[in-house]
Amino acid sequence: MTHALSDHTPRAADRDPDAPSAPHDALAAAFDPDHFRALAAPVVDRLAALLADARAETPSLPVLPWVAPGAQLANWPLALPERPDVARTPAAFDAMLARVLEGSTHLHDPGFVGHQVAPVLPLAALCELVAATLNNGSAVYEMGPVSTAMERHVIRWCCDTAGLPSGSGGVLTSGGTLATLTALLAARQARAGWDTWTHGAHDGPPLAILVSEQAHYCADRAVRIMGWGRDGAIRVPVDADHRMRPDALVAAHDEATARGVRVIGVVASACTTATGAFDPLEAIADICEARGLWLHVDGAHGASFLLGERHRHRLRGIERADSIVWDAHKMLMQPALVTAVLFRDERHGAAAFAQDASYLLADDPADTWWDLASRTFECTKRFMSLKLYATLACYGPALLGEYVTRTADLATRFATMLRDAPDFELAVEPQCNIVVFRHVPRDGTVRDDAALDALQPRLRQRVIEGGRFYPVQTRLDGRTWLRTTLMNPFTTDAHLAALLDAFRAAA
Amino acid sequence: MTHALSDHTPRAADRDPDAPSAPHDALAAAFDPDHFRALAAPVVDRLAALLADARAETPSLPVLPWVAPGAQLANWPLALPERPDVARTPAAFDAMLARVLEGSTHLHDPGFVGHQVAPVLPLAALCELVAATLNNGSAVYEMGPVSTAMERHVIRWCCDTAGLPSGSGGVLTSGGTLATLTALLAARQARAGWDTWTHGAHDGPPLAILVSEQAHYCADRAVRIMGWGRDGAIRVPVDADHRMRPDALVAAHDEATARGVRVIGVVASACTTATGAFDPLEAIADICEARGLWLHVDGAHGASFLLGERHRHRLRGIERADSIVWDAHKMLMQPALVTAVLFRDERHGAAAFAQDASYLLADDPADTWWDLASRTFECTKRFMSLKLYATLACYGPALLGEYVTRTADLATRFATMLRDAPDFELAVEPQCNIVVFRHVPRDGTVRDDAALDALQPRLRQRVIEGGRFYPVQTRLDGRTWLRTTLMNPFTTDAHLAALLDAFRAAA
Repeated sequence: MTHALSDHTPRAADRDPDAPSAPHDALAAAFDPDHFRALAAPVVDRLAALLADARAETPSLPVLPWVAPGAQLANWPLALPERPDVARTPAAFDAMLARVLEGSTHLHDPGFVGHQVAPVLPLAALCELVAATLNNGSAVYEMGPVSTAMERHVIRWCCDTAGLPSGSGGVLTSGGTLATLTALLAARQARAGWDTWTHGAHDGPPLAILVSEQAHYCADRAVRIMGWGRDGAIRVPVDADHRMRPDALVAAHDEATARGVRVIGVVASACTTATGAFDPLEAIADICEARGLWLHVDGAHGASFLLGERHRHRLRGIERADSIVWDAHKMLMQPALVTAVLFRDERHGAAAFAQDASYLLADDPADTWWDLASRTFECTKRFMSLKLYATLACYGPALLGEYVTRTADLATRFATMLRDAPDFELAVEPQCNIVVFRHVPRDGTVRDDAALDALQPRLRQRVIEGGRFYPVQTRLDGRTWLRTTLMNPFTTDAHLAALLDAFRAAA
Repeated sequence: MTHALSDHTPRAADRDPDAPSAPHDALAAAFDPDHFRALAAPVVDRLAALLADARAETPSLPVLPWVAPGAQLANWPLALPERPDVARTPAAFDAMLARVLEGSTHLHDPGFVGHQVAPVLPLAALCELVAATLNNGSAVYEMGPVSTAMERHVIRWCCDTAGLPSGSGGVLTSGGTLATLTALLAARQARAGWDTWTHGAHDGPPLAILVSEQAHYCADRAVRIMGWGRDGAIRVPVDADHRMRPDALVAAHDEATARGVRVIGVVASACTTATGAFDPLEAIADICEARGLWLHVDGAHGASFLLGERHRHRLRGIERADSIVWDAHKMLMQPALVTAVLFRDERHGAAAFAQDASYLLADDPADTWWDLASRTFECTKRFMSLKLYATLACYGPALLGEYVTRTADLATRFATMLRDAPDFELAVEPQCNIVVFRHVPRDGTVRDDAALDALQPRLRQRVIEGGRFYPVQTRLDGRTWLRTTLMNPFTTDAHLAALLDAFRAAA
């Protein structure tokens, strides 16, 4: 056989660099290995410089280069070249890249104390380059043979770490919201009392789940997607530490049942987004067991604390869950998105999207583990197992354990700092690496709640525009608070002291 | 302020390379810019070599390195080091990488004629490294300021390309299945007749959509997720070219309405997965307009043919859609996942996940375009706009147009080749770059349909194990056929002639 490729593969070097290429030639040039090298070298240089800058005593880039949305849009007009000019692309791309890096938010900067997204391990970021180049979509085995095998091993590790029994399993999927929907679809199929996947949820009693008042909005979103409306997520009151109250859970279940609602399960938060509160999983598991309710644990942020010796006690009871969601792009330092959705019984996971509902009864999914399309929401799925597999294989869980422990210990010390400061107020003792507080000026000028509520966002905006720190804010019991998630492993006590000074200076 | 970082930042070079690091030190070492460089250099080399191998006259790697799933699993045991050994990681990672590249499916090989996933532009793959390192999750503006602005521009380009009017808009999301769910949630909210997001879909008539018999399973999946069951997707018969029949659409709508079902809209395929058939969009749009039905166009694969001058006529009518799904990881040569979901009226898109249903009426989403969390399924979303923005800005739509034209033209020539071959049968004239055919041995040994059905998968498995080609298969009108999607821009007539010879040799 002859591979008649020669007419399609002029090398970049053969062409006049001043002549924009014809699209036909350009395609060959765009895939040329030398073109790839020319593009890649400055990317590696710039990213190394970015990592170095974040570790400098005083980073030169602001952690959040604040630009108002309208101005940002104007900064990035999309000019479309009429003809591809591949020879000029490395220079053009490098110039664009410089601006992208400058204008983006810098999670590697220790001043990043904002949302629950990880500063990424460089190893894991490089895995994304490999995965993107291969573009092996792993929902079909042939399209991602290594990807599929790695996913199976990573999921096994997650299940074992959570203490799930043999027969457990799951998949990796594109984020916590999708994983939550996946888990609740499995719960619906398992506990509604009829085959909802085949016959729908229209005929039969209204369905609902029980969630803490403090649960992430993804549970509510999943419920509304499934057509249960706002009443499909029944809110259970929390205690002073913002944890679901088991007595209130029982009462809410009784009340809903009396109304004719069929409650299929409970979503326990481990932990909540606002304050990092861990619901009492053992007490909730007892209630679920006694009442035949599906126990779903939202461990998107908190499940990673299973790896921290001093903090894993907060997750006691997670091993009794029917399903668990665990984001690796939060506390496992991975690039978004990569979320594990785990099932105590792998067959329930396989039923979430069963094209044929008889699947659950007919086959043991352990015998067809490589057929991910039937149990993963996505049809084409990214090769997302590689980064997590490589992280575990190269560094081991100990590195991740050190990370979660370090950030949670820092939060404990930050809480002490806040309690000791006469002009700051701590909302609640942190249970992991999330700290909620507010500034109460010592001069007595701002005293009432409404004025304090209005003050915090103003302070936050000024601090952000200062460029050294990126804290966020939250609403708690109707009040506005400042909030930090200590995601960066290189944030120190000194940074946090300086953060408080920045708030003072802003006030 | 003092950044007390020095105690946390021992450089990799300062440590004894033979001593596994303590987790504490290891964290600093794992984020060290020099460690990143040490990891990155071989990645770039190996990926450049992979691209070069794919362009060699005879690639050294098989396109699909076939290993049975069980053996594959055994190939990748996940050994967890007790302590991180960062100094040894570059070598260990490189060794792993070599095996990953060797064992994965090679979409850049011109013998890849399999599923609808793109051989990735090297530029776009590098954007993923940048995006992963930044980890800017763009559902919150502050967490992805550049990402959010780029997404707005890319979406505008998609809307303009599809011919949607001003006031149109949309978002990028994690894949076609999620985009379809997003579009159908907007359709439900707009056309059910009541506020389903708030009040649920339980009380009221059963809801349904109309889809072609040949539609991708994602529409059926979305419907079942929403709780409509198998009857929620009403199948409309197709014509001899596998396109939805407008007369049958009208009949199916009348029949469902008579049964008391509220049909909210039609999912038109542009094109179908099995044969690449484009439903007649103009005729369907007329029917939708006359009957108040939402028109959703599944352009996951086919919308990219808007960029091909000779092929865009097949999409005539797409500009009348209420919503469109368009995968960039199919025919725009992007790494998975990046899908545009477009809405004729941006406000309908904003209503898909409206936490407060009054949103639709209260605000113009164009005034809060940067607030993506309220209209994107994901809470944390990848910086997925970068690759598409960079591709458009650096190479322009002409390069993409050349790609779609080249692959579709090749399919036309392949169809001629199949018609001319006495021992092959073409299922249907290709409408884009998907070709469906089967081998009918000349010696007359295999004649009846059942035997022919059994033969095709056997031939395919043998061809795959030969390592030169990766075709797939499909079911059509109850029969089994071979199927190729000509995704690789460097597949030539000579490759396809050799593919047919490979099937002959296998038979």
